[in-house]
Amino acid sequence: MSVKIITISRQFGSGGRTIAKALAQKLGYDYYDKEIIEHVAEKTGFSREVIAARGEEAPGKSVFSYGFEAQATPGIMNGLTMNDYIWTVQRKVIKDIADSGKPCVIVGRSADFILKDYDDVLNVYICADLEYRKERIVKLYGESDKKPEKRLEEKDKKRAANHKHFTDLQWGYAPNYDICLNSSALGIDKCVEIIADLVNRG
Amino acid sequence: MSVKIITISRQFGSGGRTIAKALAQKLGYDYYDKEIIEHVAEKTGFSREVIAARGEEAPGKSVFSYGFEAQATPGIMNGLTMNDYIWTVQRKVIKDIADSGKPCVIVGRSADFILKDYDDVLNVYICADLEYRKERIVKLYGESDKKPEKRLEEKDKKRAANHKHFTDLQWGYAPNYDICLNSSALGIDKCVEIIADLVNRG
Repeated sequence: MSVKIITISRQFGSGGRTIAKALAQKLGYDYYDKEIIEHVAEKTGFSREVIAARGEEAPGKSVFSYGFEAQATPGIMNGLTMNDYIWTVQRKVIKDIADSGKPCVIVGRSADFILKDYDDVLNVYICADLEYRKERIVKLYGESDKKPEKRLEEKDKKRAANHKHFTDLQWGYAPNYDICLNSSALGIDKCVEIIADLVNRG
Repeated sequence: MSVKIITISRQFGSGGRTIAKALAQKLGYDYYDKEIIEHVAEKTGFSREVIAARGEEAPGKSVFSYGFEAQATPGIMNGLTMNDYIWTVQRKVIKDIADSGKPCVIVGRSADFILKDYDDVLNVYICADLEYRKERIVKLYGESDKKPEKRLEEKDKKRAANHKHFTDLQWGYAPNYDICLNSSALGIDKCVEIIADLVNRG
């Protein structure tokens, strides 16, 4: 297969973002992760923090729960919930990136589903064992008052619920992706190598 | 990682068995698929047809539903359902294969779960898109009075229910495997190559 766009869905703490970055660098592809948040912030007037939190992880919450932030774009949300509105803008941003025709790696945000009708897309899911993820999030993001397994459980649940809400697909179910890799079993470098080989050698 | 045993779980019609066979040949590993049925038939006295049908696809059905076949091993089933009994024997056969220390590829039968405490096991899941699988089963197994999508749906459902019943794990959920490959997206040969490379180059 010929691959121009790689979408990387990932469990929290699996190293999916690290893999995506290394992959983009290795292939010379553009990289989109927080960059998408910037675009959505610009188009909606919402803060980066709100988009980061709501763009992947909180379906169905009413816009009225957010107080002043909802006022940032008066009159154009047409009764959508805040998350539905952010999703719609985010979807447009991701489609614009794909339509630009430049090869890229896109992290998260259900880009696999949003680009399902595009050719040349490779959909990747990165997961890892619980112990590995626990250790990794503490190392990367520090301790918190919640136990690491609780933080992982909550994040996984939110991402899965968000994905289900907007795509009606089960997050992490292998048949919804082209390739799923367990980074704790295979190693981060090997994951990058496997995906890069798929792109380079088809 | 060092790999001595490869377990291949697969969606019906995904080419998982073809991949497993080619892989065993390429690596010079022993290959276990129907061979497991032979062993279980020998140990239980049940017919090969019953084991083939019940060993992967029908959890929880009472032994009393099977009439005379249940009598083949009087006194040793200890009130287990027929499927639970076949599972127990199958589990022992798979562990014996692993304990023999000879490198091998094992197809289906929840071998990934049965060998979860063994080192050197690579757990693979093969899936494929619906259209590809529909075409493939008609080509391989011929037409039947049921539509191909119905046959696929029934088989997927049975395998998932069997796996859930005996392992309490969700069949096809990526975090339960080391690597999941979509054969219709990547191609059968590429799937074999990726797995063989993982084994050969770690």
